[in-house]
Amino acid sequence: MGPGPVMVEPRVYEAMMKPIVSHVDPFFYSVFEDIRTLLGPVFGTKNQFRMVISGTGTAGMETAIVNFTEPGMKFALFAAGYFCDRISDIARRQGAEVVRLEKPWGGHFADDEAADFIRREKPGLVAFVQAETSTGVYQRGKAICGVAHEVDALVITDCVTSLGGMPVNVDDNGIDIAYSCSQKGLSCPPGLAPVTVSPRAMERLRQRRSPVPSFYFDLKLIDDYYEGSHRYHHTAPISMFYALREALRIIDEEGLESRFERHRQNHLAFIAGIEAMGLRMHVPDERNRLWTLNTVRVPDGIEEVKVRKRLIDEHGIEILGGFGPLTGKIFRVGLMGASSTRENVLLLLEALEGALRAEGFRPAGAGRAAAEEFYAAAPIT
Amino acid sequence: MGPGPVMVEPRVYEAMMKPIVSHVDPFFYSVFEDIRTLLGPVFGTKNQFRMVISGTGTAGMETAIVNFTEPGMKFALFAAGYFCDRISDIARRQGAEVVRLEKPWGGHFADDEAADFIRREKPGLVAFVQAETSTGVYQRGKAICGVAHEVDALVITDCVTSLGGMPVNVDDNGIDIAYSCSQKGLSCPPGLAPVTVSPRAMERLRQRRSPVPSFYFDLKLIDDYYEGSHRYHHTAPISMFYALREALRIIDEEGLESRFERHRQNHLAFIAGIEAMGLRMHVPDERNRLWTLNTVRVPDGIEEVKVRKRLIDEHGIEILGGFGPLTGKIFRVGLMGASSTRENVLLLLEALEGALRAEGFRPAGAGRAAAEEFYAAAPIT
Repeated sequence: MGPGPVMVEPRVYEAMMKPIVSHVDPFFYSVFEDIRTLLGPVFGTKNQFRMVISGTGTAGMETAIVNFTEPGMKFALFAAGYFCDRISDIARRQGAEVVRLEKPWGGHFADDEAADFIRREKPGLVAFVQAETSTGVYQRGKAICGVAHEVDALVITDCVTSLGGMPVNVDDNGIDIAYSCSQKGLSCPPGLAPVTVSPRAMERLRQRRSPVPSFYFDLKLIDDYYEGSHRYHHTAPISMFYALREALRIIDEEGLESRFERHRQNHLAFIAGIEAMGLRMHVPDERNRLWTLNTVRVPDGIEEVKVRKRLIDEHGIEILGGFGPLTGKIFRVGLMGASSTRENVLLLLEALEGALRAEGFRPAGAGRAAAEEFYAAAPIT
Repeated sequence: MGPGPVMVEPRVYEAMMKPIVSHVDPFFYSVFEDIRTLLGPVFGTKNQFRMVISGTGTAGMETAIVNFTEPGMKFALFAAGYFCDRISDIARRQGAEVVRLEKPWGGHFADDEAADFIRREKPGLVAFVQAETSTGVYQRGKAICGVAHEVDALVITDCVTSLGGMPVNVDDNGIDIAYSCSQKGLSCPPGLAPVTVSPRAMERLRQRRSPVPSFYFDLKLIDDYYEGSHRYHHTAPISMFYALREALRIIDEEGLESRFERHRQNHLAFIAGIEAMGLRMHVPDERNRLWTLNTVRVPDGIEEVKVRKRLIDEHGIEILGGFGPLTGKIFRVGLMGASSTRENVLLLLEALEGALRAEGFRPAGAGRAAAEEFYAAAPIT
C-alpha cells in the first residue's frame, strides 16, 4: 500500500506465462492493437497516437521531454514536488531554458497564478504533474492547457499516479503529451510507460529541425514500428505487453466509472478514518487531493520510520514515508488498482492506529469505525 | 529459431509469476545482487560494475553510447552490418564525429586493418559489434581493444547475440563497455539489457564534464540506485528481474563451458547439414561465424520468403531472412539458449530441405543425415 508498485491480480501474472512470440509477429501487433484500443478511454483521449514505451514511468517522462524539447527552448514548469524537479533535470539535459513557478512541496497552482506565469514567460513547452507522487497533490490542468495554447506552447503532463485510478481527461484538459506507468493505477508489474500525443504535438514533432537526441525514445521511429511500416526499432518486452493487455481488460470489465468511483470512495473512507483519529492530511483542500496516493501528516513527536516498521513487522503492510523536504513529515499511502479496497482501508486504519498508539500517540477517536460509518452511508458496489 | 527472442524455459516463465515487491525492498536488492554475481562469468569479467538497464538491447546500446560520448568526440566504428549503423546513428545524435571503416554486410575486420584504422584516426571511442545479428559475423576484439588503449580510447562492444551462447571474454579482450539483451543467449523474455563497465571507463565517466543527456540511462545514477545509497532512480521492472535471475541460474547449473560447447556443436552440426545439401554459409571463414546466429545463403533462383512461409505454415518453425543489402539473400537461423538443441537442428534441416525442394531446389545430399553423422562422431552430453 505504498506509492507503487501495487498489487497485481492473478490473471495478470498468468498472462506473463504465455509463450513469447517474435516482436515482428502479427500476433504481437494484435496484442499491441488491443492495448492501444483499451488505453484510449483510460487516458480520456481520442488521439490516434497512443503508444507504449519499453521502459518504466521515468522512460515515459524522458520520451515526452526529449521529443518535444530543442536546445534553447523555454520550458515552463510548475514546481511543487519531486517529479517536477525530475522534469527540470531532464529538460536541462536537453539544453532547455527551464523557468519554474515554485511552491513548497505539496502546493497546488490556482488557475489565475498558472495563467499569469505562462502569459509572462511565453514558453515553447509547459509541463505540470497531474498526480504528484511525492506530495499527494492532484493538479488541475484545464486552465494551464488553455493558456499554454494561447501562447502556442505544448503541454506535457505527468499522470504516472493517476492513470487507471482517476480521470486523466487528456482531451478535456487539452493535454498534448501525457505519460504514465504500468504499476500504479493500472495494477500491472512495472516495466512499461503508456504515452499519448495530440495531433497538434505530432505536427510539431514532424516540423522538428534538430534530431531527437535519443534513438530508443524517438517517437517517430517507435510509431513507425508499431503503427506504420512495422519497421524494426527495438525488441519489445513481449511478456510485459501480455501483462498490460490483461490489466487493461480487467479495467474494461470493471468499467471506468465504477473503477474511478471505487478509488474515490476508498480514498474518502480512508480520510474519514484519518480525521477521526485526529490526524491531518498533508493536502488541505479535498479538490487537490489524489484518490490514488494519500498523504497523512505525521503527528508531532512521532517518528514515522518507527510507525512504518511496526506496520510491516506486525501486519505485513508496506506504506512509505515522505522524502526530500517531507522526510519524516508524511506517510504516503497508495490506494490504487487492485490495492484500493474496503478491506485494505479498514485493515490499514486499524493497524495504523495500533502502531501510532504504540509510539505514544493518543488518537482522538477510532479510525476504522469512522471509515465503516462512511461506507455504510455511501456504499460502493 | 529466428534471431531472437528465443524459447524460454518453463522455470523462467514461472519466476515471473512470483508476487512483485517494491523497487526499494531489500528483497529486490538481493535479487539484483544474485543477477550481478551470476552475470560476471557470463560476461567473462571481474568488473565491479555489472548492471542491468531497464529496457531492451537497444537501451543497452544507447546507455553505452550516451554515457561515454561527448559532443565533438571522435568515435571510430567498424561497419559491416546493421547494428554498426545503429551505433553510428546514436553516436551522431550525441554530436560525435563518427569515422567508419566500412565493409559490405558480412565482412570481418582483420587485426592489422583494425589496428591501422585506429592508429590513423586516434579516436576517443571505438565500437565494434562482437556478434552482428544482421550478418552472422563474430568479430574478434583483442587487437581492436589493445590498439584502442594505446591511443587512450575506450572500447564499446555489442554482445547482444553472443552473451550466454558463446564466450564474450570482456576482460580477456580488454573491452571497456559491453552491453547485451535478455532474449537471446540468456533465453529470457526481452525487456532487460545487461551492461558491464571497466574500472578505466568508470574513471573516465567520473571525469566527464558535460551532463549525460539521458537521465534514464545515466549510469552514475543507476549505479547509485543499485549499488550505492539505493537512492531512487526509477521503478525497476521487478518481474523481469525475477525472470533474468532464473535464466542466469539455469546457465549456472548447466555450466558455462558445457553451455558454450553445446552451442558450438549444434552450430557445427547445422553447418554440416547445410553444406551436405550443397548450400553455403554467408560467412566464409568458420572462425568468424557466430555459433548463436547462423546465416545461410539463399540458393540462386529461390525466393527466401516462400521458403520461410513453408517452414512456418507446414512445420511451425520461424526463421528470419536478411534485411538491408542482404534482403532475399540469406536465411538467419538462431541456435541460442534453450533453442540450441540437437532436436531443433535435425528438425530444421529436414524441414528446410523439404521447403527448398518444394520451391524447386535440388539438394546435393541429405542435410539431416549429415548432421546426425556429425553428432555421432562428436557427441555432446
